[in-house]
Amino acid sequence: MRAPEGGPDNVGSAGVNNLAHHAADLIERLRVRQPRVHCITNAVAQNFTANVLLAAGAVPSMTIARAEVAAFASRADALLVNLGTFDAERRAAADLAIAEVRAASKPFVLDPVMIDRSPPRAAYARGLLSRGPSAIRMNAAEFAALSGDGSPQAFAEEQQTIVAITGGTDLVTDGVRTLRIANGHPLMARVTAMGCAESALVAAALALQPDPLMAVGAALLMFGIAGDIAGETANGPGTFGVHILDALFNLDPATIVTRAKVSS
Amino acid sequence: MRAPEGGPDNVGSAGVNNLAHHAADLIERLRVRQPRVHCITNAVAQNFTANVLLAAGAVPSMTIARAEVAAFASRADALLVNLGTFDAERRAAADLAIAEVRAASKPFVLDPVMIDRSPPRAAYARGLLSRGPSAIRMNAAEFAALSGDGSPQAFAEEQQTIVAITGGTDLVTDGVRTLRIANGHPLMARVTAMGCAESALVAAALALQPDPLMAVGAALLMFGIAGDIAGETANGPGTFGVHILDALFNLDPATIVTRAKVSS
Amino acid sequence: MRAPEGGPDNVGSAGVNNLAHHAADLIERLRVRQPRVHCITNAVAQNFTANVLLAAGAVPSMTIARAEVAAFASRADALLVNLGTFDAERRAAADLAIAEVRAASKPFVLDPVMIDRSPPRAAYARGLLSRGPSAIRMNAAEFAALSGDGSPQAFAEEQQTIVAITGGTDLVTDGVRTLRIANGHPLMARVTAMGCAESALVAAALALQPDPLMAVGAALLMFGIAGDIAGETANGPGTFGVHILDALFNLDPATIVTRAKVSS
Repeated sequence: MRAPEGGPDNVGSAGVNNLAHHAADLIERLRVRQPRVHCITNAVAQNFTANVLLAAGAVPSMTIARAEVAAFASRADALLVNLGTFDAERRAAADLAIAEVRAASKPFVLDPVMIDRSPPRAAYARGLLSRGPSAIRMNAAEFAALSGDGSPQAFAEEQQTIVAITGGTDLVTDGVRTLRIANGHPLMARVTAMGCAESALVAAALALQPDPLMAVGAALLMFGIAGDIAGETANGPGTFGVHILDALFNLDPATIVTRAKVSS
Repeated sequence: MRAPEGGPDNVGSAGVNNLAHHAADLIERLRVRQPRVHCITNAVAQNFTANVLLAAGAVPSMTIARAEVAAFASRADALLVNLGTFDAERRAAADLAIAEVRAASKPFVLDPVMIDRSPPRAAYARGLLSRGPSAIRMNAAEFAALSGDGSPQAFAEEQQTIVAITGGTDLVTDGVRTLRIANGHPLMARVTAMGCAESALVAAALALQPDPLMAVGAALLMFGIAGDIAGETANGPGTFGVHILDALFNLDPATIVTRAKVSS
Repeated sequence: MRAPEGGPDNVGSAGVNNLAHHAADLIERLRVRQPRVHCITNAVAQNFTANVLLAAGAVPSMTIARAEVAAFASRADALLVNLGTFDAERRAAADLAIAEVRAASKPFVLDPVMIDRSPPRAAYARGLLSRGPSAIRMNAAEFAALSGDGSPQAFAEEQQTIVAITGGTDLVTDGVRTLRIANGHPLMARVTAMGCAESALVAAALALQPDPLMAVGAALLMFGIAGDIAGETANGPGTFGVHILDALFNLDPATIVTRAKVSS
C-alpha cells in the first residue's frame, strides 16, 4: 500500500497513538456488547456484510420490508444505509429506518455506492445528507460525485459528519481532526462488497464509541489490519474473502497496536 | 457443546440408535434420489442455502416470482418457507407455493426467522400454522415468540407438526417422542444463514424419509456432525462456512454413526 | 470429464489451436482493459458472479432498479441478462438495459436459467431472441426448452447468435464453426451459480474480442481451466468455490495453452 501522506497534524502523535488503542478497545467491546446493526444494503453485499459483522462480534439484521423495517431499526443500536441496487423497496425502507434511528439519537452510516455512475442515485444520496448521517464511507470517485470540488475537511465541517474516504490510504476527518490509515491489502479491491461490509463495521463502531471520529477510524483500522493478515495467507481473492473473516474473528488488541499504520 | 440434557425417555435407546442409522441411510438416499427443494428464503441466505443443498446431494430452486413459483413448487419434492426479509413478494410466493405442495401432500418446512424481533412477522408466522407445516425449525427465542409459554412437546402435539429447536443441544419432538442432538460447533452461530440452510436440509430429508420425526432429526444430526468436522479444521467463521460444505459433501454413513451424540 | 467427442471439423486444427491463444490473449486484455459488465442476474448468483468478474479482471455492476439500470447499461461494455429469479423488477430492468446496449452495438449475453422447469420463463426467453443476443449460454435441458428439436448449429445460424451449451464437454458454435472444450471439473455442478458466473465471463470476453465465436470459446476455456486447477486442491464444493476464484485470478497465458483440451 502507499505510505501515509504527510498532512497538517491536527491530531498529533497522541491522537495517532490513540486510534490504535481505541481500535484495540473497540474489538473487545464489540465482543462483549454485541451491538445490533440494521443494514439496508444491496443484494450483492448482504451475505458478506452479515458475516463481517458476526465475525467482529456484532449482530446483523438485513430486512428491507416496509412492514417491519421500523421495528428492526428501533431495536438496533446503529443503522447502515447503502445505496447499491437502489430500488424503490430499499428507498422506502431507508426512509422509515432513518426516521426511527434519528428519533432515538442512534447513529446511521451512509455508503453512497457507485453514485459516480448513476445521476439519480447521486441526487438521492445528496438528499440524504439533510437527514444527518453520523458518517459517510466512500471511495474517492464517490466523494467527488457527492461533494463537488471541496476538500474532505470542508465537506465534513459543512455537513457536520465524519467523512471516510477509503483506498490505498484511508482518510477520516471530522473537519478539524484528520487521520490517515495505511493498513489494508490490494486484494480488497478484487472481492465484491468489501467496502460495503466495512461501512457496516463503521456503524457497529459508532454504536459503542462516543467520539465519532475515533469510532470510524477504529473500524477502518480493524478492517485494514484484518486485510493485512488475510493477505499474508491468501492465494487470491477467493481465499482472501474467507481469510479476512477469520482474521477479524481472531483479531486481538495487541495485534492491532503492533500493526497499526496511522498518521495524521 | 453442552452435553445432552436428561429427559423423559420417550424414544428409548433403540430410538436413539435409530436416529444415527436413519441419518446414515438418509445421506446415501439424498445422493441417489437428489430431491428437489424449492426455497422461499431471505436474500441473505439464498446462496449459502443452495450450496448446502447441493453439497448434500439435493437440487435447489429459489425463485420467488409470482409468475412461476407455483410451477417450481409443483415440480419440487419439498418446500421451505423462511421468513427472513419478509417482503410482499415473498409472502405472495409463500402463499402460492404452500397451496401447491399441500395439494400434492408434499412436505413444507417453516423457518420463522427472528420473529422475536418483529411483531408483524410473528403474526404472519402464527397465521402459517393453519397451513399445516410438516416441521418448524427455529431457535429458543423464536419458539417462545411463536408458541407463548407451552412446552415444545405440547406445541408439537397441538399443531400436529414436528418442532425442532436448535442451539447448543438441538431438541426435536413430535409431541410424543423427543430426541436431543448434541452435535454442532459454536462457530455455527458466527456464520450467517446457518440455521436457514439447516431448515432447507430438513425439507430435503422430509422428502425422502416417511417418519417425519426421524427425517427432521436425521437432517439436524447430519448438519451438526458436518459442523463438528468443519470446526476441527476451521481457523474462524470464514473457513468454517467453507469447510462445512466440504464436510457435508464428504459425509459417509460410518462417520455419522460414530460421531452421533443423540439422547432422548 | 468426458473426452471431447469427434465431430465435423469446421474449425480445423488451426482454429482449435487458435482458441487457446485467443484465451491466453483474453486473460491479459481483461486485466489491462478491465471491461465493465452490467449483470441483471438472479439473487442467488449476484455475489459469486461479481467475484468471478473481479477475479478475472472485469468490473461488475449489478443494479436492477428501474430508475438507473439504463444509466449503468450505457456506461457498461457488455450486458448479461440471466433469467433466474425471474421477477417483474428484473424483466423491466432487462428491457431497459437491452435497449441501451443494442442502440450502442454493445454485446449482450442471455442465460436462460432453468427454463426447462418454468413455461412462463421459457416463453419470455424465446421473446428475448428477437432482441438479438450476441450469445446464449445454457445447459442441454435449457437448450432443448429454448430451441425445440433443432441442432445447436441450425439454431445458431437461424438466430444469428453464438450458442454455447456447457456440461461435461462444452460446445460452442456460430452455426458454421463448432468448438468443443473438455476442460472443467464435476464439482462445478455442485456449487450454485457456476453457470451464471460463467455467462458473465462470456459477456466480459465479448466486450474485448471482435470474433464472437472465439470470445465465447475463450471465456469457457478460461473458466474450465480454472475449474481444473481448483479441482486439484479442493476437498469438496466449499473449497472448490473459493479456489476457482483464486485460479482465475492467477491464471496465466502459458497455463491456458498447456492445459487447453479443445477439439472441433
